[in-house]
Amino acid sequence: MNANDTFMLLRAFCDELVRCGMRHACTSPGSRSAPLVLSLVREPGLRCWSHVDERCAGFFALGMAKAGGRPAAVACTSGTAAAHLAPAVHEAHEARVPLLVLTADRPPELREVGAGQTIDQVKLFGAAAKWYFDVGIHRATVDRQRWMRALACRAYWTALADRPGVVHLNFPLREPLVPEGELLEVHPGRDGGAPWVRRAPRPAGPGAPGHELLRMVSEARRGVVVAGRMEGDPDAGEAVAQFAAAAGFPLLADPLSGARRGPAAIAHYDATLRDSRAAVARPDLVIRVGDLPTSKPLRAWLARLHEAPQAPAGRGEDFAVARARQVVLDPHGAWPDPAGVLEASLPLEPGPALRALLPELSSGDPAWLDLWRAADARTAGAIEKALGRELSEPRVAALLGEALPAQATLVVASSMPVRDVETFFPTRDDAPRVLSNRGANGIDGTVSTAFGAAAAGEGPVVVLLGDVALAHDVGGLLAAGRLGLHLTIVLLNNDGGGIFHFLPIAGEEDAFEEHVATPHGLDFAHAAALYGCEHRLVEDTAGLEEALRATLGAPGTTILEVRTERPANEALHRRVWAAIAAA
Amino acid sequence: MNANDTFMLLRAFCDELVRCGMRHACTSPGSRSAPLVLSLVREPGLRCWSHVDERCAGFFALGMAKAGGRPAAVACTSGTAAAHLAPAVHEAHEARVPLLVLTADRPPELREVGAGQTIDQVKLFGAAAKWYFDVGIHRATVDRQRWMRALACRAYWTALADRPGVVHLNFPLREPLVPEGELLEVHPGRDGGAPWVRRAPRPAGPGAPGHELLRMVSEARRGVVVAGRMEGDPDAGEAVAQFAAAAGFPLLADPLSGARRGPAAIAHYDATLRDSRAAVARPDLVIRVGDLPTSKPLRAWLARLHEAPQAPAGRGEDFAVARARQVVLDPHGAWPDPAGVLEASLPLEPGPALRALLPELSSGDPAWLDLWRAADARTAGAIEKALGRELSEPRVAALLGEALPAQATLVVASSMPVRDVETFFPTRDDAPRVLSNRGANGIDGTVSTAFGAAAAGEGPVVVLLGDVALAHDVGGLLAAGRLGLHLTIVLLNNDGGGIFHFLPIAGEEDAFEEHVATPHGLDFAHAAALYGCEHRLVEDTAGLEEALRATLGAPGTTILEVRTERPANEALHRRVWAAIAAA
Repeated sequence: MNANDTFMLLRAFCDELVRCGMRHACTSPGSRSAPLVLSLVREPGLRCWSHVDERCAGFFALGMAKAGGRPAAVACTSGTAAAHLAPAVHEAHEARVPLLVLTADRPPELREVGAGQTIDQVKLFGAAAKWYFDVGIHRATVDRQRWMRALACRAYWTALADRPGVVHLNFPLREPLVPEGELLEVHPGRDGGAPWVRRAPRPAGPGAPGHELLRMVSEARRGVVVAGRMEGDPDAGEAVAQFAAAAGFPLLADPLSGARRGPAAIAHYDATLRDSRAAVARPDLVIRVGDLPTSKPLRAWLARLHEAPQAPAGRGEDFAVARARQVVLDPHGAWPDPAGVLEASLPLEPGPALRALLPELSSGDPAWLDLWRAADARTAGAIEKALGRELSEPRVAALLGEALPAQATLVVASSMPVRDVETFFPTRDDAPRVLSNRGANGIDGTVSTAFGAAAAGEGPVVVLLGDVALAHDVGGLLAAGRLGLHLTIVLLNNDGGGIFHFLPIAGEEDAFEEHVATPHGLDFAHAAALYGCEHRLVEDTAGLEEALRATLGAPGTTILEVRTERPANEALHRRVWAAIAAA
Repeated sequence: MNANDTFMLLRAFCDELVRCGMRHACTSPGSRSAPLVLSLVREPGLRCWSHVDERCAGFFALGMAKAGGRPAAVACTSGTAAAHLAPAVHEAHEARVPLLVLTADRPPELREVGAGQTIDQVKLFGAAAKWYFDVGIHRATVDRQRWMRALACRAYWTALADRPGVVHLNFPLREPLVPEGELLEVHPGRDGGAPWVRRAPRPAGPGAPGHELLRMVSEARRGVVVAGRMEGDPDAGEAVAQFAAAAGFPLLADPLSGARRGPAAIAHYDATLRDSRAAVARPDLVIRVGDLPTSKPLRAWLARLHEAPQAPAGRGEDFAVARARQVVLDPHGAWPDPAGVLEASLPLEPGPALRALLPELSSGDPAWLDLWRAADARTAGAIEKALGRELSEPRVAALLGEALPAQATLVVASSMPVRDVETFFPTRDDAPRVLSNRGANGIDGTVSTAFGAAAAGEGPVVVLLGDVALAHDVGGLLAAGRLGLHLTIVLLNNDGGGIFHFLPIAGEEDAFEEHVATPHGLDFAHAAALYGCEHRLVEDTAGLEEALRATLGAPGTTILEVRTERPANEALHRRVWAAIAAA
């Protein structure tokens, strides 16, 4: 047992990760982790991204996995280093993002005896890791190298398969921690670069759940499709939009679904459904795909659909429908149903399942979809009029939806930006891809997630976030200079948490500003100077359009800062909702 | 069941925390946590410190608990917010710091159904929390208010008692989340401000373990005391020093012990014991208190003491001692023994136990202590000569040990600073208190820990850290302006992790700089500008002395930056060790 055993086994491990499909890993500094870091860095098929802060590394890997569509690895040293990965691990678990966490640990004889940098890493992330395994310490025999190859495959496929999520492998490592001479007898793996173990995808055929879905669709007179975040399948959005158009079902699609496109898309459901009279357009079937969208009016409307309908005077016959049936297509059984209104959860991948139904569909009642489209057009007009062309938080969201090229990726912070994007993004067939950390809905790690998307994705990346999100992950900006990444940061700076003004807590004046809104007074020009980013204050809508064009084509990281006022932003949103109600 | 039930119960809870002795709490923004935050802020006996980043809040609370000597509370909202507390929770667990973590959560009906900002918070910190409890949701009956008062006391005393650590209370909270009118029928608690439940301290009498210790001391001809971090008892250091002096035992005391004082203190054991010939001074008894010091030479020497001694030719009779007996005084049974050489772990508080022995001691062989003192003096002289007065990382550590006033607190980052302080701090009877996160030995959270010490402690606080530690917790600087705290930051900037140059990994040139040393090129003057701190580049030793005098008396936060070179710092350390060996 010497250092070369460790390094031979880790070489087999890393080689196998690449054979399975991995392309990116994150590292951070440390001593105990040296064998892991050296092995990852020396694996020709991997690109390794170095981070000073493990928390940033975790979210960066998350962003890479989302944008790249493959599991990404994040390695760290022993001790609290691993604990900094917890926020990204929980987000990956909730959002079903495949992530491989590789933690270095002390060997058993150095645990719980006062040796340095040691915490109890066993099952560190609890149920947030779908698989935890303590790798142990081994001689690099041929048998054990084969076992290590199989372990790497198992970790990769477990992260990716079924409900994707986090696999945590804990590597106890003994000194010496650097190789001693050449590695011998390295196990060659399978011929032709194949993984040691492949895991075949599940059969995609429709089967019984598909037949049940078709029966529901056939029986419906007035169906609606609700589509939320589906980052795991970039093609699902188009399939959902095609289905909705063919069935004549209004499509209430969050931009995070990639489905706000095609003739059935109803872009402004969040604004429209704020008016309770919108309950007039009552469906008899709701098909849900992806996460539940953020929109509170939509969620409330879906909950109300379970109540027995009440016909307004004189329009009785239109409403002789039963309670709406609500069904979700969820291959992982995630149960996204806070209101308790679902009738069925069908274990189907939305994209393939809805695409398979296309030949079976007969076109629905055109009046039903027209009703929704007319309401959507009225809402769109009211929004445009109420917003004007002045630069405001909603206008920034709308503009990004119009101006970003199709090959761009937009990363959106939770809190106000994800809501403004849902409310104000237009319908667009060549819309940019939109990503957001909506598993646990935190504003944390947004900068690092965006840099990860920039590292592993294709096309330019833009991130829309508020000042609190930027302050929270300000250390993430270190990736700009150190990793030489290209990112455009659109910063909505209203010096605090604007979303809280919409909540009852805003009335608790003795505590609200200091402990809830938390203004900080930061001048982010200094943050740009610290981290080697460009910084531009944008004053008006035309200026933002021009600045976006300029930064998308230029290298490096730029912060485009839009200054707004929290109370004015709240008032503007309320004016927009009033205008829609009046329309 | 309405909001006022929640608020009445939380008022009883917070009132009780103050009755037990709590004085400080941290908050961070959120919606679900509004009842917790409002109740903490409105409790007159608590001072609440607002943080944008929960990770900073966690370390800030840790620093408050260390410096203030009482449990501090940290509250946060639901979702990943709580996961950001993990690093500070693990450090508090390992370092035995009493911390009360209060997490807001969704009620059961909104868990695991796609409601926003929800992760599985049940036992979120695993074994790192000594007690986890899900508080549940209750009507504020008189009985239940009494129960809540008892719960607060139990949480406080559990964090503080026996082995101090982390108590995690998870509060599911239902809407509405703000109070509705006046609170009625608030349970008054006990008369006279007493806590609902007191927990009496353990009896401090010596008992059998004390008698065993006395017997060991009486039988020893050549005892040595090794003292490590004892932050939990600020008086222990003096008691240990008095004991060592009275017994004539050389005292190898890390500055973190507060015991590097008095005539028995051997300040330069780390440097002296690097020379293996120092094994000449072989004890027959080692009494250990506090953590095991960081010094690798000391740890190696303690491990070697277990080997049967070999007498050098011609000096046989001096070495007719058996294998050294090694004993630790540890009231919590923490088992700080990586080398497996302890013979006994005595359940004694070091300060009271050693103080109780003072009347029983007969003075030891003065030649034994003199041998050590002479070696220490030689080492001190060699260090001074090798270092010179030039500004270097060791010189900064030595200077802080000489120049800081007795009432100051020095917070020291892990990695090089804690080692340089151990190696180069002088013996001094009125030394400043020294704190460091040595539970898990991470560099993380150092800035926030220091701000917490500044918030809850007395006297000025200085933190000594490197550039990687500052980059890791750069967001912690937000406390400077937002919370108006006074802190002097002594920054050793060698643009990367200098400690790694001392390790074999430094030879792995293809990966070392990018993935291990991680130079970042940050100009921290911009960080100072971003967070409203003063920034001064210090060029020489006299300049540092002058700058320290100036900043200790002035308000606000100042960064005193000392620029060094990593390879030159390594070479200087090696020159010092060579000079000591030559002496």
